[in-house]
Amino acid sequence: MAVSDLLVARRIWDRLLGQEPVEEVVETQKVRAALYPCGIELIAPTAPDSPISRFLDKRGGGIHHVTIAVDDIDAELARLRGDGVRLINETAVPGAGGCRVAFLHPSATGGVLLELKEKPA
Amino acid sequence: MAVSDLLVARRIWDRLLGQEPVEEVVETQKVRAALYPCGIELIAPTAPDSPISRFLDKRGGGIHHVTIAVDDIDAELARLRGDGVRLINETAVPGAGGCRVAFLHPSATGGVLLELKEKPA
Repeated sequence: MAVSDLLVARRIWDRLLGQEPVEEVVETQKVRAALYPCGIELIAPTAPDSPISRFLDKRGGGIHHVTIAVDDIDAELARLRGDGVRLINETAVPGAGGCRVAFLHPSATGGVLLELKEKPA
Repeated sequence: MAVSDLLVARRIWDRLLGQEPVEEVVETQKVRAALYPCGIELIAPTAPDSPISRFLDKRGGGIHHVTIAVDDIDAELARLRGDGVRLINETAVPGAGGCRVAFLHPSATGGVLLELKEKPA
């Protein structure tokens, strides 16, 4: 969920979910993330040129992307490249929680931004 | 993910995810759903007055809602009602896969449609 103000959004989501998130700055995406145990993640930009700033300007917040956990992100990216699927990240980059992540291009999915995530061993 | 044509969408998503979904008609929501093991669900309307038909007319598809699995949906709904959270379903209704589900109103979440799901015992 892209949000412009993490503190304001946390007041809503902490209560809704009845959970406390773990917060972390993700340098590669220029966001501060609040990750709840149920899997919901709030992301707020830490810089005007953050990838989510344009989304917030255009849409004012909401569901920004969906993340799928995979066992072997390199194998998945190789499979997708072999299938001619358009990727934003040709290789995995560091994500939150020590994960390795990569985004598929929305044109490959019919308009949905999809993230693959490999959790640390 | 709301889609207008499940067959067309499955050609994209089966290949992307490298998985086969289970398909099921959900009468209460007037949708045919394809549920992938990774958790992605495609939903297509089975009637013009399906709750997702208007979304498709307006947005042309994309992420329709996010589902959170809970252990006790009655307890969660009671907690949310007690907090004054606006609900679409005041009590749980039958969902796909024998689950009991309920939707929160987007006004409660800052614009995101959130579904709670209790899996069958």
